[in-house]
Amino acid sequence: MQNSSDNVETPDWLDAIRWTEDGLVPAIAQDADTGDILMMAWMNRESLRLTAEEGHAVYWSRSRGKLWRKGETSGHQQVIRDIRLDCDEDVILLKVEQKGGIACHTGRRSCFYRTLKDGQWVSVDPVIKDPGTIYGSN
Amino acid sequence: MQNSSDNVETPDWLDAIRWTEDGLVPAIAQDADTGDILMMAWMNRESLRLTAEEGHAVYWSRSRGKLWRKGETSGHQQVIRDIRLDCDEDVILLKVEQKGGIACHTGRRSCFYRTLKDGQWVSVDPVIKDPGTIYGSN
Repeated sequence: MQNSSDNVETPDWLDAIRWTEDGLVPAIAQDADTGDILMMAWMNRESLRLTAEEGHAVYWSRSRGKLWRKGETSGHQQVIRDIRLDCDEDVILLKVEQKGGIACHTGRRSCFYRTLKDGQWVSVDPVIKDPGTIYGSN
Repeated sequence: MQNSSDNVETPDWLDAIRWTEDGLVPAIAQDADTGDILMMAWMNRESLRLTAEEGHAVYWSRSRGKLWRKGETSGHQQVIRDIRLDCDEDVILLKVEQKGGIACHTGRRSCFYRTLKDGQWVSVDPVIKDPGTIYGSN
C-alpha cells in the first residue's frame, strides 16, 4: 500500500479515486490558515501524483490540455499542507499556503469574488494586484 | 436584470453560468461560521434556482437522476447564507448553516474526512452519529 520505486507512476492511493470518463477529478483549494476557498480546478492522475510528490499544487488545464503548475507564471504557488478525499472518492480538497495571497487570475484573493444579490452577480472582493502586473503583459 | 414573475424559470443570473454539457455545475458547500468545507455536489439549473428561492441547498443527484433536497431524509438541511460564483462562471460556492452539524452520509461533519498520509488515505475525522440512526435503517 506504499509508493514503491518500481511503481512511481501508479501509487495505490491514486486507484482509490473515481476519475471522470475524461480521467479527471475536481480539486478544491482552501487556504489552510484562513479557511477561505480559493479556487476549484481539475486534476488528472499525473497532476495529483505530482502535487503530492512536489508539495505544490499541479492542476490539469482543460482549456490548454496540459499540466498547469499553479504559480509558474504568477509566482502564486500553492504549498500543500493537506490532501483530502471525500466520501464518494470523486473530489479532492487541498489545504494550501497561498503564495502572494492571490489565487485568482483577476488579481483577487479568491476566484469566488461574486455574490448573488437581488438576482444579480455582484463583485464584492477587491483586486489586490493588477493582473497585467502579475502576468507581465503591462 | 431582476427576476420577474413572468420569467421565474430562467432568471438572468442563471444564464451567466457555464453549465457542463450535461447541464450541471459543481457546488461546494462551506460552513459559513467555521469555514469548514462540508461537501461538493452537482446542481442543474432548476436545483440552483430552487436553492436561491427556497434558501436551502437543493442539489441534482446524478446517481438517482433527480432533485435532491439536502436533508429531506436526514434533517441535515443546509440554510443558505451566501451564493458565490467563480471567475470562470463554472463553479458555485454555497456558504451555509449546516443543520445538525453533519453534512456527510457517513455521519461525519464533512465529507472530506480522509487525509493522504504516507501514501494511504486515512480517516481522521470522527463519526458524530450512526448513519443507521440518521436514515432510519436501524
